[in-house]
Amino acid sequence: MPVLQPIVNLAELLYQKGIADIIVCPGSRSAPLTLAVARHPKLRVRVMADERSAGFVALGIAQQSQNTVAIICTSGSATYNLSPAVVEAFFQQVPLLLLTADRPHEWLHQQDGQTINQIDLFGPHVKRSFDLPADYAHSDSRWYIERSINEAVTLSRLAPVGPVHINVPVREPFYPAADEPFQYGPVRVIDTLSAMPALPTETWHALLGEWDESERTLIAVGQIPRHPDLLNVLQKISDEFGIPIVGEIISNLPVNETFITHSDTFLTLLDEENGKRLRPDLLITIGNSFLTRNLKTFFRTYPARRHWHIQPTVDRINDSFQSLTTLIPADPLQFLEKLFADVDYQRFLQGDDDNDANEFLSRWQQADRQATRLVEKILSTPDQPMTDWSATQLILERIPENSILQLANSMPVRYANYCGVREEQGISVASNRGVSGIDGCLSTAVGAALATDQIVTVLIGDVAFFYDRNALWSAPVPPNLRIVLLNNDAGHIFRIIDGPGQQPELETYFETPHGYTAKHTAADAHVTYQVCDSLETLRSLLPDFFQPSATAKLLELTTNKDRNQEQFITYKTQLKELQKKPLN
Amino acid sequence: MPVLQPIVNLAELLYQKGIADIIVCPGSRSAPLTLAVARHPKLRVRVMADERSAGFVALGIAQQSQNTVAIICTSGSATYNLSPAVVEAFFQQVPLLLLTADRPHEWLHQQDGQTINQIDLFGPHVKRSFDLPADYAHSDSRWYIERSINEAVTLSRLAPVGPVHINVPVREPFYPAADEPFQYGPVRVIDTLSAMPALPTETWHALLGEWDESERTLIAVGQIPRHPDLLNVLQKISDEFGIPIVGEIISNLPVNETFITHSDTFLTLLDEENGKRLRPDLLITIGNSFLTRNLKTFFRTYPARRHWHIQPTVDRINDSFQSLTTLIPADPLQFLEKLFADVDYQRFLQGDDDNDANEFLSRWQQADRQATRLVEKILSTPDQPMTDWSATQLILERIPENSILQLANSMPVRYANYCGVREEQGISVASNRGVSGIDGCLSTAVGAALATDQIVTVLIGDVAFFYDRNALWSAPVPPNLRIVLLNNDAGHIFRIIDGPGQQPELETYFETPHGYTAKHTAADAHVTYQVCDSLETLRSLLPDFFQPSATAKLLELTTNKDRNQEQFITYKTQLKELQKKPLN
Repeated sequence: MPVLQPIVNLAELLYQKGIADIIVCPGSRSAPLTLAVARHPKLRVRVMADERSAGFVALGIAQQSQNTVAIICTSGSATYNLSPAVVEAFFQQVPLLLLTADRPHEWLHQQDGQTINQIDLFGPHVKRSFDLPADYAHSDSRWYIERSINEAVTLSRLAPVGPVHINVPVREPFYPAADEPFQYGPVRVIDTLSAMPALPTETWHALLGEWDESERTLIAVGQIPRHPDLLNVLQKISDEFGIPIVGEIISNLPVNETFITHSDTFLTLLDEENGKRLRPDLLITIGNSFLTRNLKTFFRTYPARRHWHIQPTVDRINDSFQSLTTLIPADPLQFLEKLFADVDYQRFLQGDDDNDANEFLSRWQQADRQATRLVEKILSTPDQPMTDWSATQLILERIPENSILQLANSMPVRYANYCGVREEQGISVASNRGVSGIDGCLSTAVGAALATDQIVTVLIGDVAFFYDRNALWSAPVPPNLRIVLLNNDAGHIFRIIDGPGQQPELETYFETPHGYTAKHTAADAHVTYQVCDSLETLRSLLPDFFQPSATAKLLELTTNKDRNQEQFITYKTQLKELQKKPLN
Repeated sequence: MPVLQPIVNLAELLYQKGIADIIVCPGSRSAPLTLAVARHPKLRVRVMADERSAGFVALGIAQQSQNTVAIICTSGSATYNLSPAVVEAFFQQVPLLLLTADRPHEWLHQQDGQTINQIDLFGPHVKRSFDLPADYAHSDSRWYIERSINEAVTLSRLAPVGPVHINVPVREPFYPAADEPFQYGPVRVIDTLSAMPALPTETWHALLGEWDESERTLIAVGQIPRHPDLLNVLQKISDEFGIPIVGEIISNLPVNETFITHSDTFLTLLDEENGKRLRPDLLITIGNSFLTRNLKTFFRTYPARRHWHIQPTVDRINDSFQSLTTLIPADPLQFLEKLFADVDYQRFLQGDDDNDANEFLSRWQQADRQATRLVEKILSTPDQPMTDWSATQLILERIPENSILQLANSMPVRYANYCGVREEQGISVASNRGVSGIDGCLSTAVGAALATDQIVTVLIGDVAFFYDRNALWSAPVPPNLRIVLLNNDAGHIFRIIDGPGQQPELETYFETPHGYTAKHTAADAHVTYQVCDSLETLRSLLPDFFQPSATAKLLELTTNKDRNQEQFITYKTQLKELQKKPLN
C-alpha cells in the first residue's frame, strides 16, 4: 500500500459522504490532499490562491447548495486566513469542512517553516477540531482517520450546521513517484441516521394553551434562507388567525399585503403609546439574527409576556430580546405547520373569530403601509441626485425574477431592507449576518454564483468591495455574477449612524476615503465594467446588465456621500413627523 | 469622570510606556480607542481598512523600530483578520500589542452583530491575552485596566519579544457628546526593570573547556536583524580563531572574505566524504530560523558532537538540527563578545595557534568560493534571457547603500540567498521567516518604509504581490518604498522544487497562473510604474528607480517560468559536477 493511501482514500470518502465541492488553496504540505481530490473523477475542485477569499467562496457555495463544502489549505499562516470565513460560517450556520495540512507535531517550535500550532486553531468557532495521526502504519490509525472523516462530515450537517476542522499532519514525500500506483481504495461509509425532535403531547398542549390565552400574538422571523413552504404557512397563519408576521430582508419575507417588512422604519422614534399598541402578549421567533437595532430595541423595550424561540437544538439560550420564556426544540417549519393545523382545527370546531387579534394585525399592517409610503415618497422626490438608497431601490425593482441577491455589509443590506423585494419576484436573499463582517461579501457572492446557473447579484459598498477584491483574482469569475458597487468613496455607515458623524475625526479615522474606482479591478479580472452616476442612466443600463452573458459584469454607481446623508436626514425628519400620529 | 475615561487614559499610558506608533482599523465598537489615540498629541496614528494588511504593516514598523506597535480593531471577524500577522510576529519575535474592541461578554451567542468569542482569540500565538472589564465603576476595575496595560506592554518587549493581546469590551455610548470633556488623566506607569541572564563562573569555565576540546568549531547564524557589533565579533572570532561563520541572507551576514554565505549551493548534493570533512565537533547557533533545507539537512546528517544554542530564554528547547546538547541562556552578542575576550586572552597567555581549526575554516571557505564562482558563472552566461535569479542578482548589486531590503516568500528570499549582498553595501535584510507565509510580505515592506527615511526595497513574486495588494490601498504608500515585482505569472516555487514539477496537476493546482500585471494596481495606488523584460533595460532603469522621489515606485520584471526553470536545471547539473570534487 502506498504510504499516503489514507489521504488518497479521504477524497473517495468525502465523495461517498455526499460532498461535491472542494476548494483548494495551493501549497506543498497540502499536495497529497490536493492530488487526492484533483484526481477524483467526481469531485468538483476549484483552486484559489488567497485563503481568506477561498474560505468565503466555499461559504457562498455551501449557502446555496445547503451541503458541506470542503477547503484544503497548506500549513502555517495560510490556515489562519480561513478564520474570518470560519467564524462567519459558525454563526451563520453554514456547513464547511476545513482540511488544514500540517507538519507532524514534533516539529512545532523547531524553527521550521510554515509551522504553527494548528490543533484547535479555530477555538470555539468550529463545531469540533480533529487532528489526524501523521503515521498510518498501525491499522488503528487508519481506522481513526476513516472514522474521523465520517464523523466530521456528519457533524457539519447536524443542527446547528457549521464548520468542522480536520488537521492533517503529513510526512514527506508528498508527491507520488511516476511509477507509483494511484487508486482510491475501498472506504467505509458510516451512515448517521437523522431524527427530529418531537415534543411530548402534554408539552404541545401546554403550548397550545398559551397560544389560546394570548390576545396579541406576533411571529418575528430572523435570518433564514428562502423556503416556499415556510412562506406559505406564515401567510396562512397571518391571514387566518390575524397574526402579524414581522421580518426583514434577510428573513426572505417578501413585500406583500400580509407581511410586515418595513419595521426598521416604523419602529424608529416610536412614541410610547404606539409602542404599547404594538406590543405582543406572545412573541414567537424563528431563524437566526435580526438585522436592525430598531426591531431589537422595540422587543426589548416592550417585552412580550411570553416569548417562544423555536430552534432545532436547545443547548444554548438565545435570548436576544431579553424576554425569552420558552425555548422550543423543533424545526421551525414543522412546528408552524403543526401549529397551524391544530389551531385551525380547534377554531373550526369552535367557530372562533378573534377580533382583537385582527385589530392587532391591522395596527401592524397600518404602520407598515405608512412606512412603505414614506420610503416611496423619499425616494420619488423629483430632481434628486442618485443616492445609494435610490439606486438600491431601482436595482431591487429590476432584479431578474427567481434570481439570487447577495447583500453586503454594512449599508447595502440596510438600504435593501428599507426597500424590500416583491413577492412575485421570487428572490432569494443571502447576507453574511452571522458576524456581519465586510471581509468576505464579494467572495461569498462569487461562491454563490459558482453554485447556481441563476443570476447572482451582489450589492456592495466600496470599502467591502476593495477589501475583498481578491475574490476576482486567481480564479475565473463566474459569468452569472452581477456586481453592483455603490461607490461613495467612504465607509459610509459612519456618516449615517449617530455618533461618529459628530466627531472631527469622521473622515480620517472612520470613513477612510481612498479615491479608487473599480475600473482597473474589473479590467484585470476580465469583468465587463460600466459606471453610472444618475438614475436615468442606471434605468437604461439595467435591462442589458441583467441579461445572461459570457463574462461577469460590474456596474459601478458613483454616489456622493453628502447627498446620501442629506437624503437620510430628510427621511429622519419626515419620519419624526409621522411617528407623532397615533396608530389606531 | 466621563464613563470611558479609562479608555482615554489607555492612550496616555501607551505613550508613557514608550509606544510611538499605532495602526487603527476603522470600526464603531472600537471608536473610543480610536478617538483616544487619534486625539493624543504625541502618538503617530495611521489608518488602514484591511485588518490583515494592517497587522503586517504594524509588524513591518516594529521590525524596524524594534519597539512595540499597537493595533486597534473593531469586534467580530475583523479581529481574526489580524491573526496571520500575529502568528508571524510570534514566531519571528516582533513586538505587537493587539487591542481588539469587543461587545460585553453577556452578548455572546445572542445573535448580535460582530460578536464572536474574542477571549484567547489567538490561542498560543500571543504571549498573553488580557480581557479588560466592561464596567469601570469600581476602582478595582480601573486598577486592573491600568495594571494590565503596563504588564502587556512590558511583556511584548521581554525576550522572546512578541505579540500580546488585550481584548477591550466596550459599552455604549462610544462617542463623547459635544460638550463632554476629553482629557488624558493621570496614569500610573509601572516600570519593569530589565536584567540579563548571567552564567555562573563554573558553568562558563565548563563551556570554555568544551570550546578548547573542539578541534572543529563552527558558528551558524539563523535569522537575526543587522547588528554591526555582532558582525564585528563574528568577524574577529573567525579571523583570529579560524572558526567558520555560516549564515544566510536573513542572518544579515554580508558577503566578504570571511563569512560563509553560499551554503545553500555547496551543501546541496553533498558527497559523503566532503560532508564528513565539513562536519564540526562543536556547533554554536544563534538567531531565529534558518532558510534553506540544505543547511538544515547537512547539520542533521552530520551532527556535531556538541551543539550549543544561545538564546535569552530557555523555556523551550529549539532542537532544529536534532543534535542539541546545551541550551545557553544568554544574549548572543554578549555571549560571543565575552567568549572572544576570554579565549583571546587565554590564547595570548598560551601563545596558541590552532592549525587544524584553520584548515577546517579554509575548507569551508574553499567550498564557499567555489559556490560563489558557480553562481557567477550561471548568471553571467551570455545571451541569456532575464530570469528571476539574474534580475535578483542585478537588483542586489545596485540597491542603495545602507538601505533596507525586504525579501518576500517563497522564491525571492531564496534567489537573494544564492546571491548575497556585499559587506560595503551595509544592507539591512528582513523577511517574514517566522512562519514563512506569502500573506503579508508587501504590507510588511510598507510598514518598514513608514518606519524609516531610508529606501526600502521589497523583492516579491507575483502570487505574494497580488495576494497582499491591499497593502497599497486605503493608506498613502510611503514614497521611499521600492517594489520589485518578479512576475512569472505563477506560484513559481512549485516548478522549481522537486515533486510538483513532475505532476500533471502542476499548472492548474499549484502554479495557478492569473495573467495579471501590476500596472492597474500601481495606477490605483498612485505608485510610479515601469515594466521591463531584459537585463539591459533593467540595468538602465535602476539608477533612477532608486533615486528618492515624491511617490513610491513599482518595477515589474516580466520573466518566463520555463526560462527560470531551465536556468535552475543548468545550475543543478553543473553543481552536480562540482560536488564530485573532494574538498581539501
